[in-house]
Amino acid sequence: MKIPVVKEILSANDQVAAENRAEFDAAGVFVLNLMASPGAGKTSLILATVDQLPEEVRPGVIEGDLASTIDADTIAAQGIPVVQVNTGGSCHLDAPMIRTALPNLPLDAMHLLFIENVGNLVCTAEFALGADLAVVVASVPEGHDKPYKYPGMFASADAVVLNKADLLEVFEFDVDYFRSGLEMLNSDAPLFIASCRTGDGINDWVTWLLSRLR
Amino acid sequence: MKIPVVKEILSANDQVAAENRAEFDAAGVFVLNLMASPGAGKTSLILATVDQLPEEVRPGVIEGDLASTIDADTIAAQGIPVVQVNTGGSCHLDAPMIRTALPNLPLDAMHLLFIENVGNLVCTAEFALGADLAVVVASVPEGHDKPYKYPGMFASADAVVLNKADLLEVFEFDVDYFRSGLEMLNSDAPLFIASCRTGDGINDWVTWLLSRLR
Repeated sequence: MKIPVVKEILSANDQVAAENRAEFDAAGVFVLNLMASPGAGKTSLILATVDQLPEEVRPGVIEGDLASTIDADTIAAQGIPVVQVNTGGSCHLDAPMIRTALPNLPLDAMHLLFIENVGNLVCTAEFALGADLAVVVASVPEGHDKPYKYPGMFASADAVVLNKADLLEVFEFDVDYFRSGLEMLNSDAPLFIASCRTGDGINDWVTWLLSRLR
Repeated sequence: MKIPVVKEILSANDQVAAENRAEFDAAGVFVLNLMASPGAGKTSLILATVDQLPEEVRPGVIEGDLASTIDADTIAAQGIPVVQVNTGGSCHLDAPMIRTALPNLPLDAMHLLFIENVGNLVCTAEFALGADLAVVVASVPEGHDKPYKYPGMFASADAVVLNKADLLEVFEFDVDYFRSGLEMLNSDAPLFIASCRTGDGINDWVTWLLSRLR
């Protein structure tokens, strides 16, 4: 009995994700689904990325959290249009939550929408939102074994940003081991080694991202 | 339709959790359910704790991961009895998974069982395993806002260990803000500020843990 129910929920979600995608396409908005463990630096990456966007690429943000508006407040303080989605306990964003948020965003005046998912390295990868790219933000303090332990997330990524790289030595982080794990699962996703704090590596990531915009 | 199904699954899980608990009690084993974000330091805390246990308190470990035996190998290398449970994609351990692992552990020769859950600050809190204590391992690099963003996990904790405290200054971590968030949700859970790397604070945690053993 259980498996058919799960399939039905997923396909209902996929249906709404396709509707979201059609709305994004109509408005000419390119959309990132940012996924990560709690505290890996999703919000920091959004801010560091926006900081380097050309003026004509207008950003917007949907913040997903179980509770609180901490990240949305940070984004709004930078003058970026933002909507907070509180999942009320759910461990991931789903397409209907995004659909509910859209009327509150100026999509026609926007070119790049960041969806910051709930901090969760498992469940978030399982629900399409209608985004163009799935981006995983890993962080050095989490350790270099994460692709091996959480393969689903890394296998489905379109790009991986390894944040907090200013602390590679402090955490004895083996970049080659991390990279091998990623490449074993996913030979297509580029890996950007960056630090939102120092700004190192952000330029390469933003250059690649802009190359993907329609 | 959905809510009754979820309730039924939870109560089936609770039923098996109660059976696990009866088996632990019969064997005189005290059980911790260790929950955390990916890379917060659950395995490190197990090793640091075992290192300070009196000789008569024999430990054992169940390692929960989506994939890999990386942590189980680390535990086994220290001569500690360990069973790996690979969830095959599931974002949490549940009581039946623990039940399956039990025949592979020498429960009668063991006093303290650490169950290392999947790295997930949301879903793991929702499934009883039959443990005596729910212990949350937070870590400084994740940021001081975690209790506000992941309230369910912190609300249900019996104790919180804040690991990687040797890096409080590097991450500009506000301990008072973290503590306030925790106390707002949960006035009963003690907070231990510790570093598995330096060993600072581990003694207080182990002393408290031993005081809880039957």
